[in-house]
Amino acid sequence: MSNTHIEATIAALRDILGDRLSTGSSILDQHSHDEAYTTPVLPDAVAFPETTEEVSLILKVCSQHGCPVVPYGVGSSLEGHIVPVQGGITVDTSRMNRVLQINESDLDAVVEPGVTRVQLNEELRATGLMFTVDPGADASLGGMAATRASGTNTVRYGTMADNVLALEVVLPDGQIIETGSRARKSSTGYDLTHLFVGSEGTLGIITKLTVKLRGQPEHVAAATCAFPDIASAVDTVILAIQMGLPMARIELLDEVQMKGMNIYNPDMGLPEVPHLFLEFHGSEAGVAEQVESFASLVEEHGGSDFKWATRTEDRNRLWQARHNAYYAGKALRPGCEGLVTDCCVPISALAGCIARTKEVIAQSGLIAPLVGHVGDGNFHLLILVDPENADEMERAKALANQVNMLALEFGGTVSGEHGVGLGKRKYLAEEHGAAYALMATLKKAIDPGNIMNPGKLVTLN
Amino acid sequence: MSNTHIEATIAALRDILGDRLSTGSSILDQHSHDEAYTTPVLPDAVAFPETTEEVSLILKVCSQHGCPVVPYGVGSSLEGHIVPVQGGITVDTSRMNRVLQINESDLDAVVEPGVTRVQLNEELRATGLMFTVDPGADASLGGMAATRASGTNTVRYGTMADNVLALEVVLPDGQIIETGSRARKSSTGYDLTHLFVGSEGTLGIITKLTVKLRGQPEHVAAATCAFPDIASAVDTVILAIQMGLPMARIELLDEVQMKGMNIYNPDMGLPEVPHLFLEFHGSEAGVAEQVESFASLVEEHGGSDFKWATRTEDRNRLWQARHNAYYAGKALRPGCEGLVTDCCVPISALAGCIARTKEVIAQSGLIAPLVGHVGDGNFHLLILVDPENADEMERAKALANQVNMLALEFGGTVSGEHGVGLGKRKYLAEEHGAAYALMATLKKAIDPGNIMNPGKLVTLN
Repeated sequence: MSNTHIEATIAALRDILGDRLSTGSSILDQHSHDEAYTTPVLPDAVAFPETTEEVSLILKVCSQHGCPVVPYGVGSSLEGHIVPVQGGITVDTSRMNRVLQINESDLDAVVEPGVTRVQLNEELRATGLMFTVDPGADASLGGMAATRASGTNTVRYGTMADNVLALEVVLPDGQIIETGSRARKSSTGYDLTHLFVGSEGTLGIITKLTVKLRGQPEHVAAATCAFPDIASAVDTVILAIQMGLPMARIELLDEVQMKGMNIYNPDMGLPEVPHLFLEFHGSEAGVAEQVESFASLVEEHGGSDFKWATRTEDRNRLWQARHNAYYAGKALRPGCEGLVTDCCVPISALAGCIARTKEVIAQSGLIAPLVGHVGDGNFHLLILVDPENADEMERAKALANQVNMLALEFGGTVSGEHGVGLGKRKYLAEEHGAAYALMATLKKAIDPGNIMNPGKLVTLN
Repeated sequence: MSNTHIEATIAALRDILGDRLSTGSSILDQHSHDEAYTTPVLPDAVAFPETTEEVSLILKVCSQHGCPVVPYGVGSSLEGHIVPVQGGITVDTSRMNRVLQINESDLDAVVEPGVTRVQLNEELRATGLMFTVDPGADASLGGMAATRASGTNTVRYGTMADNVLALEVVLPDGQIIETGSRARKSSTGYDLTHLFVGSEGTLGIITKLTVKLRGQPEHVAAATCAFPDIASAVDTVILAIQMGLPMARIELLDEVQMKGMNIYNPDMGLPEVPHLFLEFHGSEAGVAEQVESFASLVEEHGGSDFKWATRTEDRNRLWQARHNAYYAGKALRPGCEGLVTDCCVPISALAGCIARTKEVIAQSGLIAPLVGHVGDGNFHLLILVDPENADEMERAKALANQVNMLALEFGGTVSGEHGVGLGKRKYLAEEHGAAYALMATLKKAIDPGNIMNPGKLVTLN
């Protein structure tokens, strides 16, 4: 894009937004990167719209000028999704952060895209309802929808794809559409809601979301449980899933990760062997029944050392520690950077895939703690590297690549929940085959000028 | 399409399929209509492929000749979906009816599109697993995916959108793609699986489905329960949903429908007042707990006369009677035809929408029993008409139209589960607004020759 064009775009946007269009260097810098270890790129300007109509005006201007547009939530994505690789305008939705409706009778809420998951749950507290999808970060709901995020309790309550009922979206040409309704199901026409969930800002900007809520469970029990080896822990999970045990959370942490947990959480004091972190939701009797069934599986697989967190504050501390697993992993090697993988395979392939993964980690000579939402077949490595050491960076990237190829070999996907961004683009042709070309066809049809988050997700000729 | 073109198409297809391309009049007649009360239209020929590769060859030939193609399962759709309004080739998938994989460890199965829901459950019986989506008819899974079908236990286990993990699809040009994988979740790219689920054969032909399975419940309890009026029954349902009671089925039948049930099922003998038909799944203790909670709600709302079906054969008889509600409704007026509506509204709007619906039925002077999957906010009228009576037909259509407009007024959809076909097309612009144009954009991008089920779902200029 030429300087003249970008200047004309910025001038037009300033007429609409006034001070809420920023070209200040600290603002540009903040919007040049996310949590991924990627090269930052500055946008030309950052817009802070407050309404859908403003988003629509921004996109009208940008589409007229052919100016790239990158939607931005809180910048907690993990694959460089919001890096404006072709410059242009970043649209920061943080001022669109109102909870518009809480429909207690329908178990849904209508929110603006800048509302974060913690914010929504705080607003819900008095109602006895909760929003369930919980990635590690306090992400914005718009960003979570755009990346099809999930989290620790997806095994019970689903991903963003399962929890978004309807969207309002501004298309690249500025047109405003609504997808879906607050009815729980519909068979009228193409499922546009699911098309935009996971589209990573490449098809339009989400300006409103209707999300499902659930009743807070009557009774909750959380626990940690130790295993002699990782295979026993994984086999326990596989059997629990097959038995249909409705676990609310079932997280695997390997012996390497547990070492990091003890460093980062000095009062945790758990043995440095593979662990499952668990949570059960239900009536008091229902939870007792689940716990009993699960405990007998654990015993069969040589697990032991159940530690129950019965008080709310103990449970919160447990799950906060799990959500901070990234930082705990990094504590194993102070000053390092982390490359994160996000494989997800069919549950029957999980034990085999993890065993092969551990082999390639050992061959690499690198430290790479493993944590996983194993009830979904999803697990992460945090590959620790010294970014100044070029040889080590090469080895780390090679390891990540080997692990991603293993996920595909085992019939899975290179990303269970983080998304594609910049980091996973190179795998999409391999993962999707001929279907990847269809994705490009859809992109061209909806965004013919290729202004929405260009350079991400699909390759256009 | 000119006669020369269709003859050339048929000749080319006969080279591929031999006897499995039929132009016999009884075969053409069978494929000219579904269960809807619409004007039949004959296809020019019917193809019976046995493999994905044959489907691909058929679509290559048809796209070269610009010949319309209509995918066909068992013809149990309810809105004229499979009527070949522009003639051409109907692709009947009934010979693609193999269950290819049952992955017990992963709770999924891979099937060809002609497999029916009853067939799959029979093949699953020995495994202790079940496939849950249960429309009234013994529909094909390909057809159920194409119409985004659901059924009586969707309130607990979801619609086809929730139960299809992955698809193999042949695109209009004959290209074969795979959408999704057997991994339980993925964040890599546009959600093509959900795009094809509900696309009603307008974007391609589904040639393989990976569907989710569940464990058969350890314990099941089913019951019928009578209410003094429809509002009390609906309010009971709304509260049960809000409490998060995990009912497996909760069906409303109004006093008119109950009269038909007693005629059609002479040994049923239930009072002719509004009823709920219920089912609970879980452990023995879990079911007892659900039943207790539900019974106290029923008592609060003046419900009574619980009748439990504890033996498997009694439960099967109960649900078979519910699945035959269409025929029971028609028994109220022998020789009549039925126009079926399929509204779905947010649960909080259900009581209001049904009350208004009952008013417009009364004003119409017609008989229209009401049944509903009320846990989803979805209910059907069966408007009984003498098709020879033009005035009555007009009134019936006017009533259906009023009821559909009420669904939109209450924030819902004109089809919860039957789909669009021919019957609901006229509502889509109203229901989806600007999003309807985006659906046409997608159709044009994927099927630029408009050969796939033309004249359905979207309007192309």
